[in-house]
Amino acid sequence: MPQSPSQKALVPFVSVENMMRLVHSIGVETMLLELADVVEADFRRWEVFDKTPRVASHSNDGVIELMPTSDGEIYSFKYVNGHPSNMARGLQTVTALGLLAEVSTGYPALLTEMTLLTALRTAATSAMAARHLAPKGAKTMAMIGNGAQAEFQALAMKAVLGIEHVQLYDIDPNAMAKTEANLAGSGLRVTACPSSQAAIEGAQIITTCTADKQFATILTDNMVGAGVHINAIGGDCPGKTELHRDILLRAETFVEYPPQTRVEGEIQQMDPDYPITELWRVITGQAKGRRDDRQITLFDSVGFAIEDFSALRYIRDRINGTTFYQELDVIADPDEPRDLFGMLQRARV
Amino acid sequence: MPQSPSQKALVPFVSVENMMRLVHSIGVETMLLELADVVEADFRRWEVFDKTPRVASHSNDGVIELMPTSDGEIYSFKYVNGHPSNMARGLQTVTALGLLAEVSTGYPALLTEMTLLTALRTAATSAMAARHLAPKGAKTMAMIGNGAQAEFQALAMKAVLGIEHVQLYDIDPNAMAKTEANLAGSGLRVTACPSSQAAIEGAQIITTCTADKQFATILTDNMVGAGVHINAIGGDCPGKTELHRDILLRAETFVEYPPQTRVEGEIQQMDPDYPITELWRVITGQAKGRRDDRQITLFDSVGFAIEDFSALRYIRDRINGTTFYQELDVIADPDEPRDLFGMLQRARV
Repeated sequence: MPQSPSQKALVPFVSVENMMRLVHSIGVETMLLELADVVEADFRRWEVFDKTPRVASHSNDGVIELMPTSDGEIYSFKYVNGHPSNMARGLQTVTALGLLAEVSTGYPALLTEMTLLTALRTAATSAMAARHLAPKGAKTMAMIGNGAQAEFQALAMKAVLGIEHVQLYDIDPNAMAKTEANLAGSGLRVTACPSSQAAIEGAQIITTCTADKQFATILTDNMVGAGVHINAIGGDCPGKTELHRDILLRAETFVEYPPQTRVEGEIQQMDPDYPITELWRVITGQAKGRRDDRQITLFDSVGFAIEDFSALRYIRDRINGTTFYQELDVIADPDEPRDLFGMLQRARV
Repeated sequence: MPQSPSQKALVPFVSVENMMRLVHSIGVETMLLELADVVEADFRRWEVFDKTPRVASHSNDGVIELMPTSDGEIYSFKYVNGHPSNMARGLQTVTALGLLAEVSTGYPALLTEMTLLTALRTAATSAMAARHLAPKGAKTMAMIGNGAQAEFQALAMKAVLGIEHVQLYDIDPNAMAKTEANLAGSGLRVTACPSSQAAIEGAQIITTCTADKQFATILTDNMVGAGVHINAIGGDCPGKTELHRDILLRAETFVEYPPQTRVEGEIQQMDPDYPITELWRVITGQAKGRRDDRQITLFDSVGFAIEDFSALRYIRDRINGTTFYQELDVIADPDEPRDLFGMLQRARV
């Protein structure tokens, strides 16, 4: 007679529904703030991680990527796609799932949806970077591109930096209206603007998050005044950028993992020796962040595996003692490890 | 009020228990034969696949790997670990899970346990290779190393090649006794032998599958007579081999994907220009397999992503219309794709 799977055979799984329950039980803004802190804590110990550019499989329609990393004790990876054409088909541009495992045994310790979690960790990482790079006392941000990331970005900047005012722009008025409606009651003052130019006016932080898989120019040089912080997150694969290169020539650029950003980020437009600073070096005090009030800082963010590692670790800790997960029978675990076939045989009814 | 997830949000998941049910509903030997055929069919169209060596994260205790591939329509990857030290802790040396996705959307189409499925596909691949390389009319195989793979190997060789007699050897008599007991009633004649030498005597196929993560010499040159086919599957990561190099100097060696095998296979002991033949070229008739009765053929198998792709595709087809899976709410799928935050907000109760 088949026996119930042993405890070692079971892996906690967080479904989309449970992730939403978890987020609400913690509170979106609290969670964004806590995620910013765990991501920062892992950036602080950047050197202990196994780092590799993500493994990408490109097609005409988009890209599918695997993003692994390890700190020597815990291993994680994320499966994530980016398909700008999905939106027209009523599908998400980005979907993801993630896994944590014990390095010492290779046994999975957590499997979770990561579409929502990626939106949260991306916004938390942006806000964490802005905490180190944006001008002090920033109260207004421009949010250009009002897709699935927009509200998360705005709330993370509010929770982490105290942003009070968000100026929206999207080429599609429906996207802007959606974002404005979703942010009603958040405590943020929200203004829908008729152009990128208008959205940027008076903003100390400019976030660009558009999804076209092509070289685009969302911001031109003349639009960007002195002293702003640009948080560029839409340009994140080869052939996909958002900023005119003249902006990069004026800005001080900060990145996650150079071997990946040189290929995928805004800086793919620049020469291989275009100067950049690794964000972790700013966080650990080894490099300077913002130097003065006139400087343009640019966080050329493409997303890196360590951010997912941090988010997965956070979820594993946070579901502990809750009902926000189910246990999946993922691991074949016979009593005698060499007796996999015997386990199969005994399951025959 | 939260709504039920839409159909697009749900991904079929095959647990260990359901995989065992599926195997028994098909029959182990039938499944091994069908798997050998689907793996062979994909080797036949080798050139259409995106191929990359697996992405490995090594530690003192073992290795964790991601194995992605794509044929342009379907993408797959496997998460798999290899921890020889697990056995002493009562854990599986190898555990795995796998995912299939649509290349056009990036949406996952199947998530499944792959510990059992890897054991099945590895045995099926060995038998498929032996179908092209072993001497005609082979009836006896030696099975050296009687761990979790042993019974699957024996049954695959029976189902695909008509092997009638298996001669076992393992340094641990308990492992041999386990394998002998599990194969009772299979229709195979099984002999437990006192040494590797004894197990090899009279065998036309010699399979080595030991798990130590170190250079070992399971077979020495004087043990291997003319005309045999060696199926070496235990040497599958850097520093882990099973055969003395003198055997490789006498044998004609066939491999899956050279950039991976040169690093992980038995041939890591040899010079970079040691001659090898890609198995897919034999299958498509572009290269010669076994030339004559005296030749020693060696399948230096380390496992490649295309074999997992084939197995995953097979499972997806085979669970269709059955109850051998459950649906997991893995994908966040709001009605309006850009309204991920709105979906989260509406889930608040």
